[in-house]
Amino acid sequence: MSHGGILRSENQAAFLISCPDQKGIIAATSTFFFERGFNIIHCQQYTDPREGRLFMRVLVDLDSAPTARVSLLEDFSRVAGDFHMDWSAHFCADIIRVAVFCTREPHCLFDLLCRAHNHELPSSEIALVISNRPDLEATAAQFRVPFFCCPIDGSQRRKQEEELARLLKQHHVQLAVLARYMQILSSDMLDEVAIPIINIHHAFLPAFQGAAPYRRAWERGVKMIGATAHYVTPALDEGPIIEQDVERVTHEDSIDALSRRGSDIERRVLARAVRAHLEHRVIIHANRTIVFSPG
Amino acid sequence: MSHGGILRSENQAAFLISCPDQKGIIAATSTFFFERGFNIIHCQQYTDPREGRLFMRVLVDLDSAPTARVSLLEDFSRVAGDFHMDWSAHFCADIIRVAVFCTREPHCLFDLLCRAHNHELPSSEIALVISNRPDLEATAAQFRVPFFCCPIDGSQRRKQEEELARLLKQHHVQLAVLARYMQILSSDMLDEVAIPIINIHHAFLPAFQGAAPYRRAWERGVKMIGATAHYVTPALDEGPIIEQDVERVTHEDSIDALSRRGSDIERRVLARAVRAHLEHRVIIHANRTIVFSPG
Amino acid sequence: MSHGGILRSENQAAFLISCPDQKGIIAATSTFFFERGFNIIHCQQYTDPREGRLFMRVLVDLDSAPTARVSLLEDFSRVAGDFHMDWSAHFCADIIRVAVFCTREPHCLFDLLCRAHNHELPSSEIALVISNRPDLEATAAQFRVPFFCCPIDGSQRRKQEEELARLLKQHHVQLAVLARYMQILSSDMLDEVAIPIINIHHAFLPAFQGAAPYRRAWERGVKMIGATAHYVTPALDEGPIIEQDVERVTHEDSIDALSRRGSDIERRVLARAVRAHLEHRVIIHANRTIVFSPG
Amino acid sequence: MSHGGILRSENQAAFLISCPDQKGIIAATSTFFFERGFNIIHCQQYTDPREGRLFMRVLVDLDSAPTARVSLLEDFSRVAGDFHMDWSAHFCADIIRVAVFCTREPHCLFDLLCRAHNHELPSSEIALVISNRPDLEATAAQFRVPFFCCPIDGSQRRKQEEELARLLKQHHVQLAVLARYMQILSSDMLDEVAIPIINIHHAFLPAFQGAAPYRRAWERGVKMIGATAHYVTPALDEGPIIEQDVERVTHEDSIDALSRRGSDIERRVLARAVRAHLEHRVIIHANRTIVFSPG
Repeated sequence: MSHGGILRSENQAAFLISCPDQKGIIAATSTFFFERGFNIIHCQQYTDPREGRLFMRVLVDLDSAPTARVSLLEDFSRVAGDFHMDWSAHFCADIIRVAVFCTREPHCLFDLLCRAHNHELPSSEIALVISNRPDLEATAAQFRVPFFCCPIDGSQRRKQEEELARLLKQHHVQLAVLARYMQILSSDMLDEVAIPIINIHHAFLPAFQGAAPYRRAWERGVKMIGATAHYVTPALDEGPIIEQDVERVTHEDSIDALSRRGSDIERRVLARAVRAHLEHRVIIHANRTIVFSPG
Repeated sequence: MSHGGILRSENQAAFLISCPDQKGIIAATSTFFFERGFNIIHCQQYTDPREGRLFMRVLVDLDSAPTARVSLLEDFSRVAGDFHMDWSAHFCADIIRVAVFCTREPHCLFDLLCRAHNHELPSSEIALVISNRPDLEATAAQFRVPFFCCPIDGSQRRKQEEELARLLKQHHVQLAVLARYMQILSSDMLDEVAIPIINIHHAFLPAFQGAAPYRRAWERGVKMIGATAHYVTPALDEGPIIEQDVERVTHEDSIDALSRRGSDIERRVLARAVRAHLEHRVIIHANRTIVFSPG
Repeated sequence: MSHGGILRSENQAAFLISCPDQKGIIAATSTFFFERGFNIIHCQQYTDPREGRLFMRVLVDLDSAPTARVSLLEDFSRVAGDFHMDWSAHFCADIIRVAVFCTREPHCLFDLLCRAHNHELPSSEIALVISNRPDLEATAAQFRVPFFCCPIDGSQRRKQEEELARLLKQHHVQLAVLARYMQILSSDMLDEVAIPIINIHHAFLPAFQGAAPYRRAWERGVKMIGATAHYVTPALDEGPIIEQDVERVTHEDSIDALSRRGSDIERRVLARAVRAHLEHRVIIHANRTIVFSPG
Repeated sequence: MSHGGILRSENQAAFLISCPDQKGIIAATSTFFFERGFNIIHCQQYTDPREGRLFMRVLVDLDSAPTARVSLLEDFSRVAGDFHMDWSAHFCADIIRVAVFCTREPHCLFDLLCRAHNHELPSSEIALVISNRPDLEATAAQFRVPFFCCPIDGSQRRKQEEELARLLKQHHVQLAVLARYMQILSSDMLDEVAIPIINIHHAFLPAFQGAAPYRRAWERGVKMIGATAHYVTPALDEGPIIEQDVERVTHEDSIDALSRRGSDIERRVLARAVRAHLEHRVIIHANRTIVFSPG
């Protein structure tokens, strides 16, 4: 039975590869899997001609050849070495534990919780919700997800961030999603948690970086507003962009109307970005992302 | 404090007018309100040149002149008579009671419940959820909305529909929303309940009317899929369209992927249509809708 | 006979009005035209609640009442005075003479010439093409439009701009369109010509103001690119925005590909903006535009 | 020097492959090119899970290995035989001769001529323009493209179509583009010319197949209109879809306005489809298209 196109977690592995371009990489990689009896479900590649660098995603059906993970990885590391690959392998049957950060705006949190509940976020579970304010506790409770209120304020920030980092480790969190979390995570904190963090910014970056983008969009008189999901880096709103979308607005839209329309864009942009990450379709290189199609 | 651009129910009245076009209608209408001391917040009109028919929406600030509703309506009916107007007046402070119908797909129900909870659906409350199956009872319960399971089957359909109609009357429902309700309401039932009913169809009408639109879209090989919100009439999927939207797809999207992507389109199209209705921005004429901008 | 929906220049007048909001403006304005026997084809208004300012466009059928222009304007100026209106009246039968500026990129010039030839740019004629380079002379010649090559270089810029201004006056130009003109017009020049100037910027402003926006978009890794048509002011790329649009791109799109896709966006955005201006649907206020619908 | 992202015709070959899915196809194909010293520029594949069929496009740099075309094709046919491939190879340096068919609407013809002139249609030249009416002769002349007026009327249709087919052969035409050509080509004619034919239909198929789609769209009250480019088959408007796009419209848009807005959609949809074909990115299977990304 299918509920609106749920992707079940299949027994597949996604190899994400980045290496200097040269002849024979596709041949060597595909032959590697073929010789071990694996069925390649999807093989995608992209060559950046400016850098002469190849990016590849290979999705392999693990049921097609009974091999221990450890020996598959060991074997592949030899091919990888031949071509100087940066690579990682992701097993789709493994559940990724996600922490959602929020403050007061409920729409992105609600959306992620609904999607998780509807099985639209593959290979994952929302393990906990963290907020610097108590407002959305009831929302998390509605979906029976643990809620932690961790206030952040100027004087104690460093200590509070350490507690935050501890919380993430304690819950084995592998992905953090900032769902309109109105705090900036320090460079130290990012180093400490060392997991990917996806943020939704309520503007079409690089336009309106920073605070109050809807107000500034109104003042500039733009005819479309947008939202941007990106990986968090120490530079505010400058991390690699995963997904963007926009909607047309008019002079009639007040700042509040922009904010309301924008909340719909934020929801779907954030959900698409999280989904792309969970499906192991994203490679980051030089502050840009290669986002392979779901295919 | 503002949650993502909530429209609070203001003390306003929306007049929706349709009449043969002739000189002086705008002058007479605006003068009517001006002479009684009312501030016109928004005056929108559209003339259909093929029919020579004028459609107008006048949004009036009731706080600007202390007048009893009954005398305002009585007075206006005189102007209306002069110009042979079909008209209705809607008081935005009145809460519209909404029934949401569903079957098994949770996404549209979830979306409407979240939006109601976030105050994104103005002047309304979701009074009850009705389904022909028990699957989504927990979803309604999560938001503390009464849930009624009303199975419909071939032999008893007429009697079951009468009970449905009774339920709607008992709960003083003024708008029904079919949020992926997989039953067709009979012509008798529509006559009996005599309230506006908005349906979401999971295709870009008039393409793929009827059953299994995502499968048929895949088979036809379309490069975009869509959703359509329309008022329900006895002719299946042929009622006046309120809102449509689409997204680009590719040959890589399976039927399940179309269905999953489509569920996002359905959500926003249905929400926009319900919102337009609740804001008294829709006039139906000759199986088309005039949808005035929110302005 | 209709060629793709040409708007013929009708005997209509568009009144564009901006004034402090107060009761009775719509009543007074519509009564003014009604009493003189004019048919109002379209009456649109928008109130900016932050400023308490009303913007209105009234489109009047001049054939419905035989009045001399001069007395109509004189009469209206009295109503206008009562409400402290900034206003202008535009007669749609008057042909607006347009100068198109270009440099080397042919696509926007071609597009405007084709549209003018197909009667898609109402109430106007392209009177001349001006370029700082000779490259596109043949393109102008193909459409039998006079072409003037006016090089601009550092040392003589002021004198060259004076010649440019003289050329515009000599040809009675009332609208200049910068169709990928790679020169910045000085503040002095803008003062001197004192006509509206529409520019197309090949980015979604305020993102990527200034030079090389496609390269910078590629480097930032955006997932959509756009174009912006705006009125030219002395501040580069900061004038009031008339129209914007975007298209989705992926990591696969090279800078050249962005530029090619973008050229399609530029064409339609510029054409829509020019059309809105020619149809007298734009009011500028506080560096924002009110763009009334074509209705 | 680059004019808006022109794709120059490189010395490349595109292999389009369709075959039953089985293990080892990618390995065998990529190894084939690697062993002969060819650099693979792009390797894209898609597996239709419903049919268990693999579709692949391999773009090969011919300069990377000096091989005669004939021996490359001969060699490849052996691999192809092993996997029961339907396949074709296309050499990008070969210029494809295109015939554009039109009737009276100029916008699509103009657009294609401008794009050809701006080098936006790779590996091709517009060899002739054919119309059943004389109206657009001047347009073709403007671009110095031969124009043939070939009236089609009821009684002589078969004979006239034979002349048309002769004309196409005489000019060595390899692709015909119906740019708002208001005639239906008979099944016999299609068999006779036996070249791909791309049509632009001015609606979002399968909605509004057949005549007068803009009028019917207006009457149905749709909120978006679209256009569809598809390969022509004997069944009217039912051939495999290559590209579609839409724009939002409102109740204010008259049939003429829909037609005018639609003409912009038609242009870009047709241009994208023609481009995809010319870049050898399209495989047809079971009345659907696989359109590989330009990458």
